[in-house]
Amino acid sequence: MIIVLKPGTDPKEAQAILEQIERLGLKPLFMPGTERVVLGALGDERVIASLHLESHPHVESVTPILAPYKLVSRELHPHDTVVPLGDHTVFGGERFIVIAGPCAVESREQMDQGARAVKEAGASALRGGAFKPRTSPYAFQGLGEEGLEILAQAGRAHGLPVVTDVGDVAAVERHADALQVGARNMQNYRLLQALGHCRKAVILKRGMAATLNELLLAAEYIVGEGNPNVILCERGIKTYEPATRNTLDLSAVPYIKQKSHLPVLVDPSHGTGRRDLVEPMACAAAACGADGIMVEVHPDPALALSDGEQSLYPDQFRALMRRLKPFV
Amino acid sequence: MIIVLKPGTDPKEAQAILEQIERLGLKPLFMPGTERVVLGALGDERVIASLHLESHPHVESVTPILAPYKLVSRELHPHDTVVPLGDHTVFGGERFIVIAGPCAVESREQMDQGARAVKEAGASALRGGAFKPRTSPYAFQGLGEEGLEILAQAGRAHGLPVVTDVGDVAAVERHADALQVGARNMQNYRLLQALGHCRKAVILKRGMAATLNELLLAAEYIVGEGNPNVILCERGIKTYEPATRNTLDLSAVPYIKQKSHLPVLVDPSHGTGRRDLVEPMACAAAACGADGIMVEVHPDPALALSDGEQSLYPDQFRALMRRLKPFV
Amino acid sequence: MIIVLKPGTDPKEAQAILEQIERLGLKPLFMPGTERVVLGALGDERVIASLHLESHPHVESVTPILAPYKLVSRELHPHDTVVPLGDHTVFGGERFIVIAGPCAVESREQMDQGARAVKEAGASALRGGAFKPRTSPYAFQGLGEEGLEILAQAGRAHGLPVVTDVGDVAAVERHADALQVGARNMQNYRLLQALGHCRKAVILKRGMAATLNELLLAAEYIVGEGNPNVILCERGIKTYEPATRNTLDLSAVPYIKQKSHLPVLVDPSHGTGRRDLVEPMACAAAACGADGIMVEVHPDPALALSDGEQSLYPDQFRALMRRLKPFV
Amino acid sequence: MIIVLKPGTDPKEAQAILEQIERLGLKPLFMPGTERVVLGALGDERVIASLHLESHPHVESVTPILAPYKLVSRELHPHDTVVPLGDHTVFGGERFIVIAGPCAVESREQMDQGARAVKEAGASALRGGAFKPRTSPYAFQGLGEEGLEILAQAGRAHGLPVVTDVGDVAAVERHADALQVGARNMQNYRLLQALGHCRKAVILKRGMAATLNELLLAAEYIVGEGNPNVILCERGIKTYEPATRNTLDLSAVPYIKQKSHLPVLVDPSHGTGRRDLVEPMACAAAACGADGIMVEVHPDPALALSDGEQSLYPDQFRALMRRLKPFV
Repeated sequence: MIIVLKPGTDPKEAQAILEQIERLGLKPLFMPGTERVVLGALGDERVIASLHLESHPHVESVTPILAPYKLVSRELHPHDTVVPLGDHTVFGGERFIVIAGPCAVESREQMDQGARAVKEAGASALRGGAFKPRTSPYAFQGLGEEGLEILAQAGRAHGLPVVTDVGDVAAVERHADALQVGARNMQNYRLLQALGHCRKAVILKRGMAATLNELLLAAEYIVGEGNPNVILCERGIKTYEPATRNTLDLSAVPYIKQKSHLPVLVDPSHGTGRRDLVEPMACAAAACGADGIMVEVHPDPALALSDGEQSLYPDQFRALMRRLKPFV
Repeated sequence: MIIVLKPGTDPKEAQAILEQIERLGLKPLFMPGTERVVLGALGDERVIASLHLESHPHVESVTPILAPYKLVSRELHPHDTVVPLGDHTVFGGERFIVIAGPCAVESREQMDQGARAVKEAGASALRGGAFKPRTSPYAFQGLGEEGLEILAQAGRAHGLPVVTDVGDVAAVERHADALQVGARNMQNYRLLQALGHCRKAVILKRGMAATLNELLLAAEYIVGEGNPNVILCERGIKTYEPATRNTLDLSAVPYIKQKSHLPVLVDPSHGTGRRDLVEPMACAAAACGADGIMVEVHPDPALALSDGEQSLYPDQFRALMRRLKPFV
Repeated sequence: MIIVLKPGTDPKEAQAILEQIERLGLKPLFMPGTERVVLGALGDERVIASLHLESHPHVESVTPILAPYKLVSRELHPHDTVVPLGDHTVFGGERFIVIAGPCAVESREQMDQGARAVKEAGASALRGGAFKPRTSPYAFQGLGEEGLEILAQAGRAHGLPVVTDVGDVAAVERHADALQVGARNMQNYRLLQALGHCRKAVILKRGMAATLNELLLAAEYIVGEGNPNVILCERGIKTYEPATRNTLDLSAVPYIKQKSHLPVLVDPSHGTGRRDLVEPMACAAAACGADGIMVEVHPDPALALSDGEQSLYPDQFRALMRRLKPFV
Repeated sequence: MIIVLKPGTDPKEAQAILEQIERLGLKPLFMPGTERVVLGALGDERVIASLHLESHPHVESVTPILAPYKLVSRELHPHDTVVPLGDHTVFGGERFIVIAGPCAVESREQMDQGARAVKEAGASALRGGAFKPRTSPYAFQGLGEEGLEILAQAGRAHGLPVVTDVGDVAAVERHADALQVGARNMQNYRLLQALGHCRKAVILKRGMAATLNELLLAAEYIVGEGNPNVILCERGIKTYEPATRNTLDLSAVPYIKQKSHLPVLVDPSHGTGRRDLVEPMACAAAACGADGIMVEVHPDPALALSDGEQSLYPDQFRALMRRLKPFV
């Protein structure tokens, strides 16, 4: 429920209404604006009807939030959210942001080469996984905390904020600027709630069979616990089509931009699973309104311990950055 | 099998090889180039091995066509195919082509208004269905041959080639410049074979559960009967996601361009089913390499007898054409 | 709309109402019962409201048909439809019917052996395709009309009604007892309408991406043209799962039985694409209420020209028939 | 790799080979049989080739495990695994097991009524969720540890082992006989590894977009950590079909039984999402070889706090148990 107060309402009146909302067991929100104060009440909307706020003398209007998600909806929060990535970069602002790097951190040398290559080509952030959730227990699972240190070091050396998969939340938060929740964990609500208590940006990847509503509701779990810095990531969904590893659902980009104020990232590497489709799909993502892309780049994809077939060669990444110029 | 003859081979030798191929029950192809003559043999590749052409004195190389489709593959035919749309327009050339108009022909006045609106905004061709395949037998099925006449008349009046759904092949061929095979008929092989004997362009829409290989094999049915003028159309596939009517699989565009020489059209209207997603997805289609788009535009979408919720208002179409400028 | 007349209403009154319905451009139905006469009106339900039949002196009740399909719905026709398969067999009655035979008719000998094997094991009908719709134009397309003759001859010799894929409708109707519309043609409405004028049973297979509502609406096209003998066939849908050729959606069986009076057939051969899964899924089909199954059996699957990997060996088919005993 | 030792091999020799395997960084397995000792080596199969065990004097045969999963494959372990559910019941043995109860524990009274109803009708175990993973943070999330106590108490009172959703692993292990991993957590590998250290049975539900191979690999994570008591559960996958909440993929049952020794459970409640489809699909599950079913039953479904529309009324559950008689 969105409650707009009349201009000039005394802050004490706003406070009194918020207390009434809280006493009903709902979550109160205080959103002061330049012209009017807006209050919110999240929870069972039938309950709040009992307050009859629409006839309260200081209330101008009471509007239900129609979407099942509330805090992440544009109805409640019409302006675009801008998420800090480290100290000097933001995601969701005017610039189109390119996050690039290897799928997994493999060695100090690989990350140094990778970071240099993507920085020189113009990337804004460095990615690399240290805790890799793998379908098979016999596949390479990442270097763990040692990998986080290598990643953080490469980021510092090349002046890039770093993005990594959430494994152990505490360890990851210590080392990374953005914590990425993989598709397999999009509905791991305990993890989402823990990330709601982090101060870092969270990149929430769409589950392989998640609807866009389910993605937005998953984001609501994080924001509801107090962390507003959520970036939603389209990375392809499972369909019957075998030509690509997943089916990149780019309609998700304008759909989410319309329904939510959160910024949107596209991952054409996982979204297609084929190196040769990354560039055209990255351009398409930019053209339909994404705020940035995340791309796998490896100094030598043929030797990559994971996702080699979808990782760009450094010179392909440079070509991609040139192609993106008109869009960014 | 692709058989490249040595430079300067006597045409009689080529003819003799083609006859050998034909005697084996395979389909012979003659493809003279500026430097070399290339022959093709389509059918069971084990059979042709019995000819031992690789040791023939005038043969330079013999290469199997690895794709399951042959005539439509880039292996056989490396250059882009350009398809004529009427007498003055081509699809698949340098220009990005926009085909626009109402889902169904409803009346002379509606088509005249629709044609004027799309022509003024810069469309290259006019669409409108007279035979509408509808899920329910109780839904509006189109005006039939009368609708074809109205469409053709609107096209002539505004100088636009016309595109329409195949219903009765003979009637449609008389009136239209391009014949569109809907998603439901993509694997109606009798229809595809009949269209292989037409002289007009055929727009083949991807079936709702068709893989890209199945789409290319369906095109092979048409080209194999003698009509090379096939345009492939991505129009969204069925997935679990309910936010959009279909899931527009734009990866199909660069994938097909890589595997085939046929031009690719994208239909963001059916691909999303939502008017508000048409513009961003049209831009994305252009950005990832499509040769054109087909968009539903109606003089008054609220009154449309079909697909109103995905049809653009004329002023939205004008805005779209402006947005497409950098891509076209 | 279902219009129940009061007991003892004069037939002339019924006739007068039917004429009113027809004058409105709707389709009138006359369904005399043992106690009451029921009338139907199919088409735009807003139009019929203008007749105010609920206040007509001989009308007991007027009920809208809520389903989008009408003639095939249980609302209109509560009793199970029983479809004749040749002169001596029915589908949809008390007996569980097993239709078996090779995917394609290949030779007189193969069909004779196949027919003998399935007859001896207890099958009720013989299947075999003469016009095979194949994804690739280079795959075996069937023997055509010669195949139909071989099939019909094998059926006569072993006392089995025969089922075959619709290719050329006229030819197929001459030779077969049931005409099967393949998944690729489920929404080929011209074909469905043509089959509505046949006198033979039609087996309508669910399209690979068709919803159950779309399947029922496709059946409505056939019944609406005058042929009530339609059998609906669940044969698996396309999903992301590669372990099976299709995903057999057995929930379709009780769902359709609840919504429609038409009998339901299950095809576990195409539904799984794996010989080793046919028997358990055939038992499951029987257990959840199917009226019968259609199974591919080949005298020598290793030599089959199509679908060998999903065809049962004759002794596997005998074992299946024994396993089905408790269900049939 | 499966290494079969010759009959009469000295245990010391077996031990020596196991040590060699371990030194290579692979996981050694010791599987003494009545006639022969079998050893296993899990990990990179190229590494183990370096041991040349096939020419070792006490080795009879060395066979690679072709499946990507090893411990859960039938190749390694041909006999069916039987999983204890509490002290007096087993899952995967001769009896067909029915687990029944409400979706969520709501109150002491509801669970007592629910437990009595399912026990009287013949259920073998009681289910009820105390930690409910819900798509929306505003939906009822379960009673937490208090709910676990209520559930355990109802189980004891009616002599039924209890099954519940994993939330807090330690708390759940204290109270329940079987821990259920929901579809959303099937690839939450940290959770799977933690469950590998439990002593209780684990019910692993298939993810909504998980292939059967991915499900088996997820089970491998649990078994690999030391808990062999895993039950695999088919509960429907996401498809385009809206008639049912999910598409119950019963082919999964015989497929898994063929590939793995683990027992298989079917959940027709989530698998269909419709109360009226539960009984036929439960019968189909039994007919195709499932070891049991899990069914939602509520004393008053209209009042249920979750999943009411798919919960059976107690009398429907009694009818189901009667229908299942021939299969169990």
